[in-house]
Amino acid sequence: MPDPTAPVLDHVAADAQSAMARWFDWLRIPSVSAQPEHAGDCRRAAEWARLQLAAMGFEAELCDTPGHPVVIAHHPGPNAGAGAHLLYYGHYDVQPAEPLELWTSPPFEPVLVDHKLGPRVVARGAVDDKGQVMLWLEALRAWIAVHGAPPVRVTVLIEGEEEVSSPNLDAVLISRRGAFAGADGVVISDTNMWDRGTPAITTRLRGIAYTELRLHAASRDLHSGLFGGSALNAANLLTSILGGLHDEAGRVAVPGFYEGASEPSAAERADWVALGFDEAAFLGAIGLSHPAGERDRSALERLWGRPTADVNGVWGGYAGPGAKTIIPAEAGVKVSFRLVPGQDPEAVVAAWRGFVNARLPPDARAEISTFGTAPGIAIPPDLPLVRAAQSALQGEFGRPAVLIGSGGSIPVVESLRRLLGLDTLLLGFGLDDDQVHSPDEKFDVSCFRHGIRAHARLLGELAG
Amino acid sequence: MPDPTAPVLDHVAADAQSAMARWFDWLRIPSVSAQPEHAGDCRRAAEWARLQLAAMGFEAELCDTPGHPVVIAHHPGPNAGAGAHLLYYGHYDVQPAEPLELWTSPPFEPVLVDHKLGPRVVARGAVDDKGQVMLWLEALRAWIAVHGAPPVRVTVLIEGEEEVSSPNLDAVLISRRGAFAGADGVVISDTNMWDRGTPAITTRLRGIAYTELRLHAASRDLHSGLFGGSALNAANLLTSILGGLHDEAGRVAVPGFYEGASEPSAAERADWVALGFDEAAFLGAIGLSHPAGERDRSALERLWGRPTADVNGVWGGYAGPGAKTIIPAEAGVKVSFRLVPGQDPEAVVAAWRGFVNARLPPDARAEISTFGTAPGIAIPPDLPLVRAAQSALQGEFGRPAVLIGSGGSIPVVESLRRLLGLDTLLLGFGLDDDQVHSPDEKFDVSCFRHGIRAHARLLGELAG
Repeated sequence: MPDPTAPVLDHVAADAQSAMARWFDWLRIPSVSAQPEHAGDCRRAAEWARLQLAAMGFEAELCDTPGHPVVIAHHPGPNAGAGAHLLYYGHYDVQPAEPLELWTSPPFEPVLVDHKLGPRVVARGAVDDKGQVMLWLEALRAWIAVHGAPPVRVTVLIEGEEEVSSPNLDAVLISRRGAFAGADGVVISDTNMWDRGTPAITTRLRGIAYTELRLHAASRDLHSGLFGGSALNAANLLTSILGGLHDEAGRVAVPGFYEGASEPSAAERADWVALGFDEAAFLGAIGLSHPAGERDRSALERLWGRPTADVNGVWGGYAGPGAKTIIPAEAGVKVSFRLVPGQDPEAVVAAWRGFVNARLPPDARAEISTFGTAPGIAIPPDLPLVRAAQSALQGEFGRPAVLIGSGGSIPVVESLRRLLGLDTLLLGFGLDDDQVHSPDEKFDVSCFRHGIRAHARLLGELAG
Repeated sequence: MPDPTAPVLDHVAADAQSAMARWFDWLRIPSVSAQPEHAGDCRRAAEWARLQLAAMGFEAELCDTPGHPVVIAHHPGPNAGAGAHLLYYGHYDVQPAEPLELWTSPPFEPVLVDHKLGPRVVARGAVDDKGQVMLWLEALRAWIAVHGAPPVRVTVLIEGEEEVSSPNLDAVLISRRGAFAGADGVVISDTNMWDRGTPAITTRLRGIAYTELRLHAASRDLHSGLFGGSALNAANLLTSILGGLHDEAGRVAVPGFYEGASEPSAAERADWVALGFDEAAFLGAIGLSHPAGERDRSALERLWGRPTADVNGVWGGYAGPGAKTIIPAEAGVKVSFRLVPGQDPEAVVAAWRGFVNARLPPDARAEISTFGTAPGIAIPPDLPLVRAAQSALQGEFGRPAVLIGSGGSIPVVESLRRLLGLDTLLLGFGLDDDQVHSPDEKFDVSCFRHGIRAHARLLGELAG
């Protein structure tokens, strides 16, 4: 029997220009989930995906939520609903593009740019996650074009609130569990390759606990001359509390923070060392030369295997030009914690709350709220879906895929395991220099092409 | 010979309604020196004062500066330029009125409001300093109306940049020194009474060193998942540095900060204890119940006799709604230090700079700028002008004035001493609850009336 994947790869090659045009169409829709004025754009981006899937023969619908809609689609595969069943997850929403003045070209007008490392497409969402969703959408399209159907049953789930911590996704997973729970596993492309030539499967994700603290002191802003030395200053208090967030060794100093945190296994540590990570280049690309964080850990441990605390934003008092001599009555901070498997996100929030409350003088009041929590995840490397992906990547790149971690969080992976009992293959084609969440986000065209082909091969590996 | 002051006080009483109308006229001009869009209003407020003085028989002019103009005026007094010579200083500029939504009435539409403690006028500048400048303007007006001239030579200096640290005043004092240097002393009304019934002369002012620190780390904001644990976070670093600003006892922990700082004299300490300061009421009025600051000092020492460090504003990263998972590349803070006599403001800035630089990791860059510095001031209580004011206040209030300190800074007092060799009488009629620099700034009408009369009596005390 001839290899069914070969003509699919030929079709992908012949259809490359059209695939890029479709990708650009989607990128032009500014589906910024965090900004209420883009709610209509989010729905347009969802509807765009639904129409693509419907045209490919999927039964496709928009599922409304209290936030942005979710795209759900199903294809019965070659055997009228029997055989293996894959669930593909992605998100059509993107991060805010601000600050706009730092973009070389408008964030929602994708452009193909020449670069010494090869051509790339620059736009908000180029890679995260519209570009990576396009990889498996185009692979499925090619299978259907050549063979009339994908080689397995396929369910698609594309949400629009990943960048705002997926507040409504769990409810959809529960209310529509019948559509998802029968799947054999999940495929997500929202992670990175190891480098331009080395494919990777991500088997470790950090979790997150994102918090906001608002401190209140006096009943109004005060004159710093007439009241200074006597009146409680909310900004002094805030920075005093935050000043104790890390110890001298770079560890998070919140008591109980490391409770339950798992250490990377000896095998993982060995794998990570073998990767020969070029920390100097990694830091050099962002204008840095010395690692921050825990002093007694290797570079990849700090990024993949250890929890962190970062101030994402801080504010209080007068931030305009020149001098204003006030004692601020209020100040606030966003602090997010990245977590490793074994840490309980709710316990971390409680520990942070306790840390703050223990440092409040009598006249201060603290409000702490959270914006999404998820535990860290470790994916078993012997999962059949991981094995199949390793074969597909070996075929596409001519070299073995490496098993890596990611410092980021994909909370849906935890939800899929907790609510539906499903394990996830994290098969991503981004690169470290993609400027995800930053101005001039980009996706290399070679990554886009390899990604479509690798997804087409993965489907071939899974063909019954 | 009949007392020449008595008919002046009668005139003040008869003219009270007109004086209030003039005061309101001036308050309606939004002369906010910090905001460039109000530059024209600043000039209008200066011109208003010039016209008032010219109408009273002063030779009055606007002196242009690189910033807002200064009003300079001269009256030869009763003896064609001979005899005692007083220099009155004040400022026509006001603090920004923001946040506007916290005002009960528009800040530049003065209103007379009934209150259980007596009627008051609410407006930005009601007391600081337009309302207090009106006190001596109206006293001079009454003397001139009744006697044809004030009883001494008078020079007036009203600047428009006091609220932005008087960047151009020293140059005016130097270039026009001939107009000022012959004076016997300076009178300023920009301070407070002890309470509604107790007049006060301020003999101690704190100085200031106002700084801004900007920290720079990575070349752009970074994804806190992909880079967290490895990349330097400018906001983490900023709050870590600021976390060490005070020690456990509430003292400023910057090495060298207290260098040269004088302690209050035993007599001052005794005077301050005798005042019976009601700290609970002072703090209660601003929604607080426990003093912050140094634990081992009395309430008035903390406010008048000890230096401080206050964060006036802090910023960095994302301060909008919800979650944005970034590691900020930049963060900043405004920190101002209140100083006591003996501390060198430039040395304090240098100590702060050293404190910051000692805490910078290799990849961080700090920019520190200053917005005005002034040393703390102590005024000799046996100054003839102080003695004359004590008599005037005894006459007006029927009880002795108390000698107090102020935690605020009036840098011009230091400039007048350093550049012109002049000592200053600080004779103020504000109250602690005036909400200076805050929404709903006000001035009690009784303070306004007593203030005009006390200034009229002071002129009588000085009559040759």
